[in-house]
Amino acid sequence: MRIQVINPNTCLEMTNSIGKSASQVASEKTEIIAVSPSQGVVSIEGHYDEAIAAFHLLELIRQGEQQHVDGHIIACFGDPGLAAARELATAPVIGIAEAAFHVASLIATKFSIVTTLSRTKIIAEHLLIQYGYTHQCAKIHCIDLPVLDLETNEQETYQKLLEMCQSAKQDDGIGAIVLGCGGMAKHAENISKVLDIPVIDGVTAAVKLIEALHGLGIRTSKWGDYDYPNQK
Amino acid sequence: MRIQVINPNTCLEMTNSIGKSASQVASEKTEIIAVSPSQGVVSIEGHYDEAIAAFHLLELIRQGEQQHVDGHIIACFGDPGLAAARELATAPVIGIAEAAFHVASLIATKFSIVTTLSRTKIIAEHLLIQYGYTHQCAKIHCIDLPVLDLETNEQETYQKLLEMCQSAKQDDGIGAIVLGCGGMAKHAENISKVLDIPVIDGVTAAVKLIEALHGLGIRTSKWGDYDYPNQK
Amino acid sequence: MRIQVINPNTCLEMTNSIGKSASQVASEKTEIIAVSPSQGVVSIEGHYDEAIAAFHLLELIRQGEQQHVDGHIIACFGDPGLAAARELATAPVIGIAEAAFHVASLIATKFSIVTTLSRTKIIAEHLLIQYGYTHQCAKIHCIDLPVLDLETNEQETYQKLLEMCQSAKQDDGIGAIVLGCGGMAKHAENISKVLDIPVIDGVTAAVKLIEALHGLGIRTSKWGDYDYPNQK
Amino acid sequence: MRIQVINPNTCLEMTNSIGKSASQVASEKTEIIAVSPSQGVVSIEGHYDEAIAAFHLLELIRQGEQQHVDGHIIACFGDPGLAAARELATAPVIGIAEAAFHVASLIATKFSIVTTLSRTKIIAEHLLIQYGYTHQCAKIHCIDLPVLDLETNEQETYQKLLEMCQSAKQDDGIGAIVLGCGGMAKHAENISKVLDIPVIDGVTAAVKLIEALHGLGIRTSKWGDYDYPNQK
Amino acid sequence: MRIQVINPNTCLEMTNSIGKSASQVASEKTEIIAVSPSQGVVSIEGHYDEAIAAFHLLELIRQGEQQHVDGHIIACFGDPGLAAARELATAPVIGIAEAAFHVASLIATKFSIVTTLSRTKIIAEHLLIQYGYTHQCAKIHCIDLPVLDLETNEQETYQKLLEMCQSAKQDDGIGAIVLGCGGMAKHAENISKVLDIPVIDGVTAAVKLIEALHGLGIRTSKWGDYDYPNQK
Amino acid sequence: MRIQVINPNTCLEMTNSIGKSASQVASEKTEIIAVSPSQGVVSIEGHYDEAIAAFHLLELIRQGEQQHVDGHIIACFGDPGLAAARELATAPVIGIAEAAFHVASLIATKFSIVTTLSRTKIIAEHLLIQYGYTHQCAKIHCIDLPVLDLETNEQETYQKLLEMCQSAKQDDGIGAIVLGCGGMAKHAENISKVLDIPVIDGVTAAVKLIEALHGLGIRTSKWGDYDYPNQK
Repeated sequence: MRIQVINPNTCLEMTNSIGKSASQVASEKTEIIAVSPSQGVVSIEGHYDEAIAAFHLLELIRQGEQQHVDGHIIACFGDPGLAAARELATAPVIGIAEAAFHVASLIATKFSIVTTLSRTKIIAEHLLIQYGYTHQCAKIHCIDLPVLDLETNEQETYQKLLEMCQSAKQDDGIGAIVLGCGGMAKHAENISKVLDIPVIDGVTAAVKLIEALHGLGIRTSKWGDYDYPNQK
Repeated sequence: MRIQVINPNTCLEMTNSIGKSASQVASEKTEIIAVSPSQGVVSIEGHYDEAIAAFHLLELIRQGEQQHVDGHIIACFGDPGLAAARELATAPVIGIAEAAFHVASLIATKFSIVTTLSRTKIIAEHLLIQYGYTHQCAKIHCIDLPVLDLETNEQETYQKLLEMCQSAKQDDGIGAIVLGCGGMAKHAENISKVLDIPVIDGVTAAVKLIEALHGLGIRTSKWGDYDYPNQK
Repeated sequence: MRIQVINPNTCLEMTNSIGKSASQVASEKTEIIAVSPSQGVVSIEGHYDEAIAAFHLLELIRQGEQQHVDGHIIACFGDPGLAAARELATAPVIGIAEAAFHVASLIATKFSIVTTLSRTKIIAEHLLIQYGYTHQCAKIHCIDLPVLDLETNEQETYQKLLEMCQSAKQDDGIGAIVLGCGGMAKHAENISKVLDIPVIDGVTAAVKLIEALHGLGIRTSKWGDYDYPNQK
Repeated sequence: MRIQVINPNTCLEMTNSIGKSASQVASEKTEIIAVSPSQGVVSIEGHYDEAIAAFHLLELIRQGEQQHVDGHIIACFGDPGLAAARELATAPVIGIAEAAFHVASLIATKFSIVTTLSRTKIIAEHLLIQYGYTHQCAKIHCIDLPVLDLETNEQETYQKLLEMCQSAKQDDGIGAIVLGCGGMAKHAENISKVLDIPVIDGVTAAVKLIEALHGLGIRTSKWGDYDYPNQK
Repeated sequence: MRIQVINPNTCLEMTNSIGKSASQVASEKTEIIAVSPSQGVVSIEGHYDEAIAAFHLLELIRQGEQQHVDGHIIACFGDPGLAAARELATAPVIGIAEAAFHVASLIATKFSIVTTLSRTKIIAEHLLIQYGYTHQCAKIHCIDLPVLDLETNEQETYQKLLEMCQSAKQDDGIGAIVLGCGGMAKHAENISKVLDIPVIDGVTAAVKLIEALHGLGIRTSKWGDYDYPNQK
Repeated sequence: MRIQVINPNTCLEMTNSIGKSASQVASEKTEIIAVSPSQGVVSIEGHYDEAIAAFHLLELIRQGEQQHVDGHIIACFGDPGLAAARELATAPVIGIAEAAFHVASLIATKFSIVTTLSRTKIIAEHLLIQYGYTHQCAKIHCIDLPVLDLETNEQETYQKLLEMCQSAKQDDGIGAIVLGCGGMAKHAENISKVLDIPVIDGVTAAVKLIEALHGLGIRTSKWGDYDYPNQK
């Protein structure tokens, strides 16, 4: 099977890093195709960035469908364009925020999120409400470094992440930590080992959930709300 | 003061009709500028349409800001791109769905929505949750005619609207009806008179709310979540 | 148009101060009539005070209706007697708490409330639940000075208000502040300027919302729950 | 112990009937004192009636406290003035709506309410939200007869009540029925026997809950929100 | 009447202590029968302990029903096996957590819980959601001593309890405190006196609630969800 | 990897049928071990049945852990004993109700449940609340045939299921159907084909979710609430 992992921003380093994380957990038979739009925003740090990125990512969804990929991943923690993408697709589409929430809820009663900028907190909060996870998320922490620092300033962001995850583990009454950015995927395993608590990254979670849906023969429902966009 | 009323789809008849409705309630000193994008979708009937429309409407928000308009109205009942628009603007930005909900809640304990297609119901439901109006909305009814019929098939849509509003009044235990599409604005007054119940249209509601904010000297907060998009 | 602004307590200084705030934002064509009951409680600082005040304010609503005012404002942050007043009135009736919440939600994702006494917090909390704003209110702060100090001890209350608004701005992750007492209206503009964040006072907000409803020709619904009290 | 049962309307037949119901379940050692205000409204059928009744009932609470009664019951299904009464009292105060909800939730997973007029439905709905019982109440039914018919038209109201309770039992997926008016207390036992399902009346429920609190030595908390009204 | 008070763990000291607390508030005519299973877990400190305890307590419910007791109390703060017990019983069954929540909500707007171990917090949180008390519980505090210390280390646990209740009273904005363990019943009265705030213990609360139901002639509903277990 | 699929009732036909469904979707490298307790209840049709079944299934969880299985599935739609099982296990444990909800929410905005008996509806409702899926579940339908009929009366139950799923598809405004019983697994594929709408069975969903967690190296968190049961 082939999964298209879409980094909705235009930062190629992040696309590569996300693709690598995805490949590491993919089954032998799964091919990971990491893509990103050629136009749009170089990082997604607010509602405006999301709206621009959503527009461009929908074109990639369309292309992926034409190439008959077996699933799409929206690799930005705000899950931008998710419902719109599902209207375009028959293959399943999964956002990395929802993927991480689903997985966290299967192995812990509560989780905390560690994400990038304070101004993106509201986006995570809206997703928690929309998806029904408010009572399972103890707290949202922000390292308050720009998203691109995850690529250009790798060591410092790792250090900040580690510290914040450590204090989340101690103080939040949780059983798991969710990393709130596609660019953090590469650090999940290390932090989990160092802190001895499950640390969930949405990119890898989404890969395995797409594989799970594929194994079930379940695709995006075309009955009702996710039907193809109306022809005018 | 000048208010930019944005019809986010490309149907000029609807832009004109919305502009006319807006002008009818605007104060003498308020200039209504009705605009619509030159590109995008001809009607908004789902999440995909919304995402495309949001992209193009943001360009109009930007232009409006450069022209120093005093407020922006997003004249589509799903309030597409609202949070993103607020990041771009210092002038207030109001969506017609939220406008209608606010006004309805000031004069009735409960309202019902009468909108176009069943597949847009989910969009209204998400807004009700996000804005906090779930317990004040009794029911969402759909006339199940395409959005464009509101322009091309005016008499039939009016008839269907009237019947559905009538049965909402009788059966839903409500005190007001909210019309769920910018293209329905022109019918609000008539239906209200015929049925003798407040019928609220978001376009006119948004005009008066923008004027209210203007009179208060209150603009979109630039402290926190609605700050200008981050420069990278 | 004429708007009756009702201070539901018997403190005339507060009635005057509220009337002045209301007049400052009213349109040229709007006449503000500030009234208060001759009997009742001198300040409203709990449920009992509210119940007594509500009784007397309803008489003022009735008188206002006889005088054909075009709107009523209940200028106490607990919105006492609001639903009862709407049953008596055909003109719209707006409470200053709901007015402030509506306005705040149009320009910020979240707000905090700064109010007077800790024991009135529960009243604000119940309103947030009833109106559907719990997820948009970050925190309720109390300066813990009696309501009457707002008139007799103006400088100290301003100072306390300012400090509390400042810390709300820094710590609460908000975009706007709501002042939780009619007697605070006079300080809103100053604090907003000093702190550079929208500070919303319900008295002025309610004036502009009533004007907005008037401009829309929308009055309190007499179909259903807000119908006139039953004759026995 | 002495329990003051307050019928907040001025209909003496109802006061007597409520007092009789209360006495039938009271312990031997409990004296029931059924009172009603000499002024106010003759029946409570909306928010306005509630506000007027609350004012007058508070005077009775005060008198009861001076007479050192051991508990107060507010025998109107909207629990008017409940929080205000608790500020005045050290003895416990219980409303018949909350009493009925508490009891119902102890013996069934869900209940339906059968009350008088459609326009009082909104009052019950607000109480369910405020008290936290929304998910335990399946439906609110209205017999749509005026409250006073419960006294003047006893046989017809009984018949209507019985029919509605019967259909609630069959259709609502419930385990108990709550009667939504103090004047219905006298019918609870009969309906329960005829329909073979627990039918809960708030008047009798409140008597036993007050006795329970008395037996526990638990009185209205004077720490915090229910402290005595502030002296000015 | 006879009430069976079931300590669902096998610690006899706790059974005795709970029985004694129950007897102290029971009416003269009420006989308290304190029982505990001979098999199971010696203390209940998590979901596993609850599941094991529930199994054994159901046998005691069955025995109690055969002996025609007039009510059952499940004297563990997680209310383990409550719904299952109600299916077996015609007599009312009450858990001590729900009993305490009911009583607290009748005399205060908000309460805090002081319980034993941090890992049992999630159990209390789930009950608050299920019963509808989330908005009335300000905070859950844990003394973080094992349940059995309540018997073996009485003085230290009392001291810890007292300190935590003291800080809950000061900081939580509450009107009452709920003790979160059957083994804490014996301390409720003392702490309440020392701190001058209602301190509610679920064991005694449940006794009086069962007596109240008995006085009303209300038993567990056998219509619907709590009907006897299906015969296969 | 080896997954232990636990049918918590003692009906061996159902254990076999569930095992077969599980095997059909399992990856080549996954071994399915279908087990059921030798004691307990022959079918689970209420809270009492659940409590008994939970006790016995925990012994199977313990045995599975000793045999180092890589995951456990609780194949009863009420997810009995789930939290308790997670305390015993390091391997992930998934209930079939949560599994089905997770999968449904990834491919549709809303789903309906079609389950067996009306009296089990309350169990599903509680799970929807606890897991956060209330707003995504449109309706719960019951075919009102005993669970064991799924084995002994296969054709009739299939026919009833099909009809109910058909009407759910037409009337509920959904995009997917969730089958509410382990014994229905065998019919999911057929119904989905006939009705052309995704029909999700929790048994197969849980298999693929366990495989997904295994692929991520994510196991039940032993930090916090799901830590091993306390030693006394």
